[in-house]
Amino acid sequence: MLQISDKGAAVPASPIRKLVPYANQAKERGIRVFHLNIGQPDIATPEIALEVVRRLQISVIEYTDSAGNHTLRSALAGYYQRLGIHISEENILITTGGSEAILFAFMSTLNEGDEIIIPEPFYANYAAFAVMVGAKIVPVTAKIENNFALPPVSEFEKLITPRTKGIVIINPNNPTGYLYSREELESLAEIVKKHDLYLYSDEVYRRYCYDGQTHFSVMNIPGIEQNTILFDSMSKRYSECGIRVGAIITRNKDVLAASLKFGMARLCPPALGQIAAEASLETSDEYFHKVHEEYVHRRDFMVEALNRMPGVVCPKPQGAFYSIVKLPVDDSEKFAQWLLEEFDYNGQTVMLAPGSGFYHTPGLGKNEVRIAYVLKISDLQKAMEVLAAALKVYPGRTE
Amino acid sequence: MLQISDKGAAVPASPIRKLVPYANQAKERGIRVFHLNIGQPDIATPEIALEVVRRLQISVIEYTDSAGNHTLRSALAGYYQRLGIHISEENILITTGGSEAILFAFMSTLNEGDEIIIPEPFYANYAAFAVMVGAKIVPVTAKIENNFALPPVSEFEKLITPRTKGIVIINPNNPTGYLYSREELESLAEIVKKHDLYLYSDEVYRRYCYDGQTHFSVMNIPGIEQNTILFDSMSKRYSECGIRVGAIITRNKDVLAASLKFGMARLCPPALGQIAAEASLETSDEYFHKVHEEYVHRRDFMVEALNRMPGVVCPKPQGAFYSIVKLPVDDSEKFAQWLLEEFDYNGQTVMLAPGSGFYHTPGLGKNEVRIAYVLKISDLQKAMEVLAAALKVYPGRTE
Repeated sequence: MLQISDKGAAVPASPIRKLVPYANQAKERGIRVFHLNIGQPDIATPEIALEVVRRLQISVIEYTDSAGNHTLRSALAGYYQRLGIHISEENILITTGGSEAILFAFMSTLNEGDEIIIPEPFYANYAAFAVMVGAKIVPVTAKIENNFALPPVSEFEKLITPRTKGIVIINPNNPTGYLYSREELESLAEIVKKHDLYLYSDEVYRRYCYDGQTHFSVMNIPGIEQNTILFDSMSKRYSECGIRVGAIITRNKDVLAASLKFGMARLCPPALGQIAAEASLETSDEYFHKVHEEYVHRRDFMVEALNRMPGVVCPKPQGAFYSIVKLPVDDSEKFAQWLLEEFDYNGQTVMLAPGSGFYHTPGLGKNEVRIAYVLKISDLQKAMEVLAAALKVYPGRTE
Repeated sequence: MLQISDKGAAVPASPIRKLVPYANQAKERGIRVFHLNIGQPDIATPEIALEVVRRLQISVIEYTDSAGNHTLRSALAGYYQRLGIHISEENILITTGGSEAILFAFMSTLNEGDEIIIPEPFYANYAAFAVMVGAKIVPVTAKIENNFALPPVSEFEKLITPRTKGIVIINPNNPTGYLYSREELESLAEIVKKHDLYLYSDEVYRRYCYDGQTHFSVMNIPGIEQNTILFDSMSKRYSECGIRVGAIITRNKDVLAASLKFGMARLCPPALGQIAAEASLETSDEYFHKVHEEYVHRRDFMVEALNRMPGVVCPKPQGAFYSIVKLPVDDSEKFAQWLLEEFDYNGQTVMLAPGSGFYHTPGLGKNEVRIAYVLKISDLQKAMEVLAAALKVYPGRTE
């Protein structure tokens, strides 16, 4: 009998994307859907990146090096050096989005049954990549009451077993927007060092930290150089999610060599995306200044609007462009589906990402959603009106 | 102790790409290297595809649908219908190159320890994808004496165990250039049906069949509709290997649904590549007529040149743009490395893909190489001169 594999059955559908069919049906009914579910900013891609694509000179779109174009790796190394992270081209493998960086690094370092510890809520796709390599996710729960700060390191240490191979940290955090402090990261590094674990650090949102805070990279913690594997992506930094260009950055030569073998099997990362990515690295400070200001403006507006709604709790994120928001609803997945299937406010509705998809512990996140503040203020304003109106009439309201 | 995973250690480096560092060193010494190792044609990408990229209108390069753009899937379904393969958009998942189609289909259908039967020699990266899912490749050896025709179906049947889940067929074949006949495929379908196996059919070279032969797709064999999973890619058909756009085509809804969940985890296939791919589907017959003629010309030239060299045997391929060629050498991997490290002929050398990388049975292919006839005649001519000269002086010559 033809059967789906155990992993094919076990891999969760993305909480961000699995309600898309309902959204499409709503659109077919003529309803305008505000997408707060997905980290797809409406911010313009830097003109420099679009222009280089439009000026495409080549007559054959060829494979690139499996590790990515030499010129891109070299430019990316320069970017890191300017950030004060001292790595060179030899420490970089260009991947097809940050997604492939996670897959290759996990595939290169984890055996079936190995365990990785991740603070939850976490970017849901880590669960899918863990399924692909057969690794077990061991969550440490961060609390909304603490703005999702790093749980005490003692909580991590309790969970370490002989099968523990690594810790994943997403900084600034997706989905919470929490920005980990240098102290938090250094305390985490202590147990990484003590138990000789891999530290997978997802820093794809590093460019967006607010309120004068600065990003500290685990790449600059001495003593864990061989343990640290950085995941990067161009998608969010330059609002070019579709180019599918990311990177694994590590000083661990064995990890990079193994990842490159997986990279050879898939031949190369996208050639056109790499051209756009390389140009993007020249993006002006002025662009970032404007985008930064825009995100702060959106965040402040959204946090205030949400916290004004009775029963809603929204911590103020310090980075990225997400917040995990507590809603007075019975089940946020039902609520999200109801918003698309049964509700509209003046012909408009919103799409939310149900919180449970970001937790590994069953039952958590049922009254939470992830909201991405990726829409311009005028749209965000309408989306908040829709949400406020929906919460008033949702049959499963709890308070 | 930080360790590489078992799969990271086991995954083979691509035989096509692992000698690249030696080629780069040769180039640094000022030597011109003719690349016969890789299926990277020098054929121009259709102008229609380049033009649509140059006319890029969007201001944000956004994520696409995880299954690929609706317009691309719809256009690709139209392409298949014109070929007489009756599938619709719902049967298509757009992937990041044919590579990801293999990975997702294997991941969705194979458990650790499951077995897949593949005629060897086969496209080497199947071995890497099998390692990624923990599947065991069981080879059936095709022989150069028979031009690498399909081994008798009885040979396949002998290898079937309770763990056998599928058969992989590459048609036209990479690396042999063999084009399977309708009769061969129907006989294979019989055992697929009898044992209810998956039939993974890699038809990425279908557009290039020679000498008046036509391609027959397993998608048109009745009775195995649920078993058949097709791998497609734009790379070779339109000489746009760098765009990284391929597809899984299947009538098996469960396989497609599982593959889509893996697809959601990686968010989407490359947006720019999808734009180029969609335009490519409108490529004129005139383009294909010219390219077809060019490949026949190159093939005929190469086959004749090779068979004139003492001790060399090159079957005449009927499809794709590769041939597995027998050389009078002790070890084709050593020979390929020697060509890059120690040999040049008038400042030129050639890069070959060692044959052993395309076999699963240890020891096979040691006196074979894969040669891709992807260079224009004037370059191919020089490459053949280099090879002839090299074979005369190679210290490990066997005859």
